[in-house]
Amino acid sequence: MNAKATLLVCGQILTLDRNNTVIEDGAVAIAGDTILEVGERAALVAKYPGVAQLTQPHGLVMPGLVNTHTHAAMGCFLGLADDLPLMTWLTEYIFPVEANLNGEMVYQSSLLSMAEMIKSGTTSFCDMYLFAKEVARATADSGMRGWLGEVLYDFPSPNYGVPENGIAYLEELLAEYRTHPLISITVDPHAVYTCSPDLLKRLKGVAEKHGVAYVIHLSETRDEVKACLAKYGKTPVMHLDSLGLLDSQVVANHCVVLSEQEIDLLAERGVKVAHCPESNMKLASGVAPVVEMLAAGVIVGLGTDGAASNNDVDMFGEMDTAAKLHKVHRHDPTVMSAETTLRMATQGGAQLLGAETLIGSLEPGKKADLIVLDMNKPHLTPMYNIPSHLVYAAKGSDVVHSVINGLVVMRDKQLLTMDEDAVLDRLREIGAQISGMVGPGRR
Amino acid sequence: MNAKATLLVCGQILTLDRNNTVIEDGAVAIAGDTILEVGERAALVAKYPGVAQLTQPHGLVMPGLVNTHTHAAMGCFLGLADDLPLMTWLTEYIFPVEANLNGEMVYQSSLLSMAEMIKSGTTSFCDMYLFAKEVARATADSGMRGWLGEVLYDFPSPNYGVPENGIAYLEELLAEYRTHPLISITVDPHAVYTCSPDLLKRLKGVAEKHGVAYVIHLSETRDEVKACLAKYGKTPVMHLDSLGLLDSQVVANHCVVLSEQEIDLLAERGVKVAHCPESNMKLASGVAPVVEMLAAGVIVGLGTDGAASNNDVDMFGEMDTAAKLHKVHRHDPTVMSAETTLRMATQGGAQLLGAETLIGSLEPGKKADLIVLDMNKPHLTPMYNIPSHLVYAAKGSDVVHSVINGLVVMRDKQLLTMDEDAVLDRLREIGAQISGMVGPGRR
Repeated sequence: MNAKATLLVCGQILTLDRNNTVIEDGAVAIAGDTILEVGERAALVAKYPGVAQLTQPHGLVMPGLVNTHTHAAMGCFLGLADDLPLMTWLTEYIFPVEANLNGEMVYQSSLLSMAEMIKSGTTSFCDMYLFAKEVARATADSGMRGWLGEVLYDFPSPNYGVPENGIAYLEELLAEYRTHPLISITVDPHAVYTCSPDLLKRLKGVAEKHGVAYVIHLSETRDEVKACLAKYGKTPVMHLDSLGLLDSQVVANHCVVLSEQEIDLLAERGVKVAHCPESNMKLASGVAPVVEMLAAGVIVGLGTDGAASNNDVDMFGEMDTAAKLHKVHRHDPTVMSAETTLRMATQGGAQLLGAETLIGSLEPGKKADLIVLDMNKPHLTPMYNIPSHLVYAAKGSDVVHSVINGLVVMRDKQLLTMDEDAVLDRLREIGAQISGMVGPGRR
Repeated sequence: MNAKATLLVCGQILTLDRNNTVIEDGAVAIAGDTILEVGERAALVAKYPGVAQLTQPHGLVMPGLVNTHTHAAMGCFLGLADDLPLMTWLTEYIFPVEANLNGEMVYQSSLLSMAEMIKSGTTSFCDMYLFAKEVARATADSGMRGWLGEVLYDFPSPNYGVPENGIAYLEELLAEYRTHPLISITVDPHAVYTCSPDLLKRLKGVAEKHGVAYVIHLSETRDEVKACLAKYGKTPVMHLDSLGLLDSQVVANHCVVLSEQEIDLLAERGVKVAHCPESNMKLASGVAPVVEMLAAGVIVGLGTDGAASNNDVDMFGEMDTAAKLHKVHRHDPTVMSAETTLRMATQGGAQLLGAETLIGSLEPGKKADLIVLDMNKPHLTPMYNIPSHLVYAAKGSDVVHSVINGLVVMRDKQLLTMDEDAVLDRLREIGAQISGMVGPGRR
């Protein structure tokens, strides 16, 4: 009566299941895209003889990380400009370049970020950008699990032109990927300051028709709140609520500037929040009240934001920063424990994406999305506590193998789904083009 | 008339000299322990034919990082306990274990931290701990450049017993390493709350007699300030000043809680400050006013603190956090630029240690302490700006080669000065011992 296992991933197993089960010398048996069984290594090897094994001496097997807010294609802008006021950065660097963006740049640059994500332990992400069909194509090629959409706003886009065309483009995306095993399309109004109430409502209709997530940047900066108050007499959160848009379909990115009442409202409405501490720090936006949101019952996932405002898409670094930032911000070393932070980066992300039955822990019946870390390192030896090591000490570079949807996408740090050197060569060319668009290089 | 070069390190050269010279395809010519010449690769290869080369495709050659505050031997406590109030952490975990510490544990655990430091790009450090002779022995074996001392306080030490013996132990250390090419001994009163005014003054006399640095934890927490005010009617900084101890020989660790007047006083007295943002975040101590200190002219270096309160000794991560933390703390994305942060981690550290003529930049006549990074990585491609990449995007794991005092201590990520696997095996045994000292494991 045994199903047919196709792969055994062996090592110390951190399941992150409800009971926090750890198996010292264990294995995850995979059948196709699904976890068949998690148990003792010897028992599973005996039960599934001859099945291929993926293993690592002193290896730790854990669920792949979930990056809940990315702009993958911005990988090509990494370091183009930093340490500048937001508006200078946008108007003198990012906007001039984005005006000249094309599908090929987006495809290649998305692949670049996906290479970085896989190599640093992320297996799922939620992305919002222009030329989303190219992002989707890169996602499919990379083998990653992606939620992604075309960013929509009132003004013309370098991709689709006028907003009307944007909605048609979105409908095509939704149709094209309806049954894709790894790609889910989202509806992505950019923000309340770039989308009219009409556009926001119309897009909510699209999201409802298709039953997909409605992803929006929300209350990221004090300036955004100020402008929204001036224009609509309401904060961004209250503005969305007054339009009847705030419900459990909404994934709100950032949520840095929130009142207590707004936190309670987000919890009540079932809104999910993508927390991006490093981007919020680097752009000096502020510290999102994550401790308070979690206490109020808001589902919070962790995200890196685009590489251009971080400047990486490494979720191990993001966990470390998140745990430390809230401690110093609250003057309390007990908040944002390693366990809480690790859950945010795995199951929190899964819940945010409505995928908690699919990913976020290693349990039979879930999709086989997992990573293996090499723990035989000076910075990880000895080990007293697994979550502590994963949050405070492990690096993305400790990840050696990655399996997504049952497929080995990285083995011994080598990407198997793409030609990494070719991507890097292409990106150096694209980088040279981009340098030309913003005038003399800063180097 | 050419001196005899012994090694050419080739790649893109970031000198961090006064003019921020970058050589796209360059080489550093080394003769013995000293940099002979920095220039174009082709010219130096022609000038020094047959000399061994250390190189890396897409490699960046830069000065080794300077970690200005460590307790290397605490590597064995990494993750033993986290997310706890400081006093619980100290009294229930660290103190019981430190009471049972012995020289062998300190030696092995120091080697462990040094392995991590070399592998993540640090070539020099300033350490303070117990059993400092063992720390010195590990330093000599690792090939690192170290400033280190025995921590001294009013109560008995597991190493030397009563304070009187501590001073004798310190004098022995000073005598033993007086002429060592890589090791400098420092005088290390622990803090104002653990050292009587008498001990502080007596140790200052020792530091003056030998012309060495006087290293002390200073104004790390609000509780320290409160207690000092209660006991002496003065803040820690003013207390030291009133004792006549505040001068340019002093290296003050942390300096989180400072008034404007105190910042000006530190600048005036020439006190150097070791800034440890990640430890200050993790222990929820606060954010040191580094922007203000730099503006006032205080010399500030960057440090990780011990691995037990960080939990790593990775200076690349520390730079990233430092640059972001001050931006969000000040609500200003322009402060703590990548350039400022990189200088703090190199020349700032060199100045703090009084070694600015020896290390901190790649210039003829300086000691040959340098690292080579592999920049052919998804997270480092394309590259528009070197300091931005080094601070915000590069990881310790991107370092492939390390040269200290002219000696190659790591080649292709392999440590050449120690048997890494043997150190890890020994540390796993020590970890098991330590687990036994604090009761049931937390895993």
